[in-house]
Amino acid sequence: MDDVFQYIDEHSSLYIDRLLHLLRKETLAIQRKGIAEGAEYVVGLLEDIGAVPKLIPLGETTYVVTHLDGSHNHTIGFYNHFDTQPPERLEAWNSPPFDPIVHDGILYGRGATDNKGNLVARICAIEAYKNVRGHLPINVIFLHDGEEEIGSPNMPTFLDQYGELVDKADGWVWEGGDKNSDEQLEIYLGVNGMLGIELEVVTSQEDLHGSRSAIVPNAAWKLIWALNSLKDSSERILVENFYEQVNPPDPDEMAILNSLPIDPVSIKRKYQITEFAGGQSLAKALERQYLYPYLNISGMVSGYQGDGMKCILPHSAKCKLEFFLAPDQDPEKVFSHVSNHFKDHGFDDIVLNPYTTMPPSRTKPTAGFAQLAMELANEIYENGTVVYPIMPGFNPMGLFTKRFGVPAISLGVGNANSRIHQPNENVRVEDFLLGIKFIAALLERLGQSPQSWK
Amino acid sequence: MDDVFQYIDEHSSLYIDRLLHLLRKETLAIQRKGIAEGAEYVVGLLEDIGAVPKLIPLGETTYVVTHLDGSHNHTIGFYNHFDTQPPERLEAWNSPPFDPIVHDGILYGRGATDNKGNLVARICAIEAYKNVRGHLPINVIFLHDGEEEIGSPNMPTFLDQYGELVDKADGWVWEGGDKNSDEQLEIYLGVNGMLGIELEVVTSQEDLHGSRSAIVPNAAWKLIWALNSLKDSSERILVENFYEQVNPPDPDEMAILNSLPIDPVSIKRKYQITEFAGGQSLAKALERQYLYPYLNISGMVSGYQGDGMKCILPHSAKCKLEFFLAPDQDPEKVFSHVSNHFKDHGFDDIVLNPYTTMPPSRTKPTAGFAQLAMELANEIYENGTVVYPIMPGFNPMGLFTKRFGVPAISLGVGNANSRIHQPNENVRVEDFLLGIKFIAALLERLGQSPQSWK
Repeated sequence: MDDVFQYIDEHSSLYIDRLLHLLRKETLAIQRKGIAEGAEYVVGLLEDIGAVPKLIPLGETTYVVTHLDGSHNHTIGFYNHFDTQPPERLEAWNSPPFDPIVHDGILYGRGATDNKGNLVARICAIEAYKNVRGHLPINVIFLHDGEEEIGSPNMPTFLDQYGELVDKADGWVWEGGDKNSDEQLEIYLGVNGMLGIELEVVTSQEDLHGSRSAIVPNAAWKLIWALNSLKDSSERILVENFYEQVNPPDPDEMAILNSLPIDPVSIKRKYQITEFAGGQSLAKALERQYLYPYLNISGMVSGYQGDGMKCILPHSAKCKLEFFLAPDQDPEKVFSHVSNHFKDHGFDDIVLNPYTTMPPSRTKPTAGFAQLAMELANEIYENGTVVYPIMPGFNPMGLFTKRFGVPAISLGVGNANSRIHQPNENVRVEDFLLGIKFIAALLERLGQSPQSWK
Repeated sequence: MDDVFQYIDEHSSLYIDRLLHLLRKETLAIQRKGIAEGAEYVVGLLEDIGAVPKLIPLGETTYVVTHLDGSHNHTIGFYNHFDTQPPERLEAWNSPPFDPIVHDGILYGRGATDNKGNLVARICAIEAYKNVRGHLPINVIFLHDGEEEIGSPNMPTFLDQYGELVDKADGWVWEGGDKNSDEQLEIYLGVNGMLGIELEVVTSQEDLHGSRSAIVPNAAWKLIWALNSLKDSSERILVENFYEQVNPPDPDEMAILNSLPIDPVSIKRKYQITEFAGGQSLAKALERQYLYPYLNISGMVSGYQGDGMKCILPHSAKCKLEFFLAPDQDPEKVFSHVSNHFKDHGFDDIVLNPYTTMPPSRTKPTAGFAQLAMELANEIYENGTVVYPIMPGFNPMGLFTKRFGVPAISLGVGNANSRIHQPNENVRVEDFLLGIKFIAALLERLGQSPQSWK
């Protein structure tokens, strides 16, 4: 691969310019701002490397799908998104979030890592390989999403209507990832599923004087009792049948988990906490993080929020509940269990409004696609890799792996201080270029190997 | 009393004018607006009837204390306040809240009942009696408070520094009360105590991504578990030793309770509810309302409140908790029980900030002062009376009855639709004038009776 790597080094200014250019576009899905323009720019980038992308407007967003033919029959898919998180808090940025700069080898701007850095790196990798070798070793599909940061709400519809545009991929490289603080590349073999539900309870028509609470039910208390019935203080979820689809981890997955670095002191320092969730050991918490489901509350509100006393009986209470699902759980089934749980426990007045539903994704560490990528990463990244069963969080990966029955992994150009979603997001130029090389080499490795990808 | 009553009827225009005048003053303790001016006007009113009031500025408020001598040695105290609730929501008023009008025999304005209507009625009653009879039958103390609507925060200091100005009262008539929808006068023999505590739990330095909740404790969950440990869904308070000062009601109090009208259907309709608190009968709920303590949440908040999803792990959660205390409970002791409860149950990270502390007040229905007032009210109010062991809520009454060991009752000029604290607050002119007559007659009755007031 020396020829391709040399070409990449010689074209580094061009590649960095492409990234700077894309970072200057404000593409904020949550504000429905600049998405069509972002898609147009991505189309231009792809045309520059000789591809013929399709622009697919859908709902309030736009997808870009691109196919490039290779000399072998395998097809790799790359999923990236060109929308970003909003830049807030603006005053915390040292340089303007949409006027990126390179300083001391680090490129700063909103989206530098998440996800424009990865998006541009992968396109440049394809171009470099093609220009040096005159062909691609395998087929490539690019799928560019314009609303990942708001949960890709149109993706199920996209797959229903345009699924045949992406169903040829035999394996996916998902949006990205970081190096950890030991400079090891982090590789994720899956992602949590997500079930986000807003709970609401309304007990009367309007807020009353607090002294009425002897007689009139209090919405805040109802919500508290209902929530308390869902999870105990050891973090065990108490919903009947909730764990029915939670399978014990494979020996391979346990081996991965047991190989993870565990440093309770530094993690406590990082988050400035005195204990781990559930009052448990870090080992137990990491097991939950990577192998089991867990239940978050991202917000709740009821009644009076101001200073001092306003003695009212709140007539309504709300809560946003987020189930991070384990690899084999089905969000629809979980929703039905939660709904039944409330009915069975006398909380019939809790109204459930699901707002996000994403299936989990799990690729076995033994899958050929993952094996080849991990093997190559250990050759290319000098400090080696750390492999995680899942990326904590949720994204549309599971929609693809579940529907098409193919493997997917996620890795990328970030570093331990890339500050994604935060002010001063950045990517190191060196990591960006190494990421391009890795993707180019991955095409070759996948094209050369006779191994099944599954 | 016909002579005095006739005098009152002849001077009704003057009395209504006095009330209209006072209602034109914006006296909003919560905004620290117009309190000194309100006090000055009350002083003027009292000087008009020949009294020599004392103005006592204290902290950010002003008290007015007035003594009038009578021919017997007993002293009656009247507690009223000249501050009001803010008028919001302004757009819901049919006439300007501080430009009162009389329409169809009803006087509308903020404070018409609570508490300027009662304040003016009582001063006019004293004047009428004195002018007709040339003397007062008993001594009178007026105490006028300027910050009742924010919980009279300076009252304990006032009593410490100026207690001797009010310690001669052998019995107090507290600020007011209403007629119910059957036109019966409601008489309250006491009031709940109050312990308001803000709970706060902080689990980390800042909000994190929701996926960290497998590892980092969630402040919202901590608060939920802590709150759930305080009260079960049958409204039973689970704090250890909480009920130690809750005594079973007297037979007299039970008799009062059993005499209360119970109409579950109309109460459900009034509040538009489908069940009573605790899922219990109205009888049980009323027992709690008038004889037992109960625990309200007036507000709670944590994390993200907006629409849609923002998947965060909230680092803090807050809640305003209000204990409505039964007649013999001591708020300081209850605070210590709650504090111990959290420590004993592993909720050491819950921070408790008490914001309101008021002792309860209980006057036995057999106390002479209450007996004489109830007897007279049954003569004067043609539909009779309903007597309640306590007024649900809290006010400084307990500071007086506890400190001075004297009885206190509360009753007044309101009606079932007086809308206190709400837009279009009002008092019926007829009730205002009857209230003046009742107070005048009460002076005479108390002066004539040889009965002990206790």
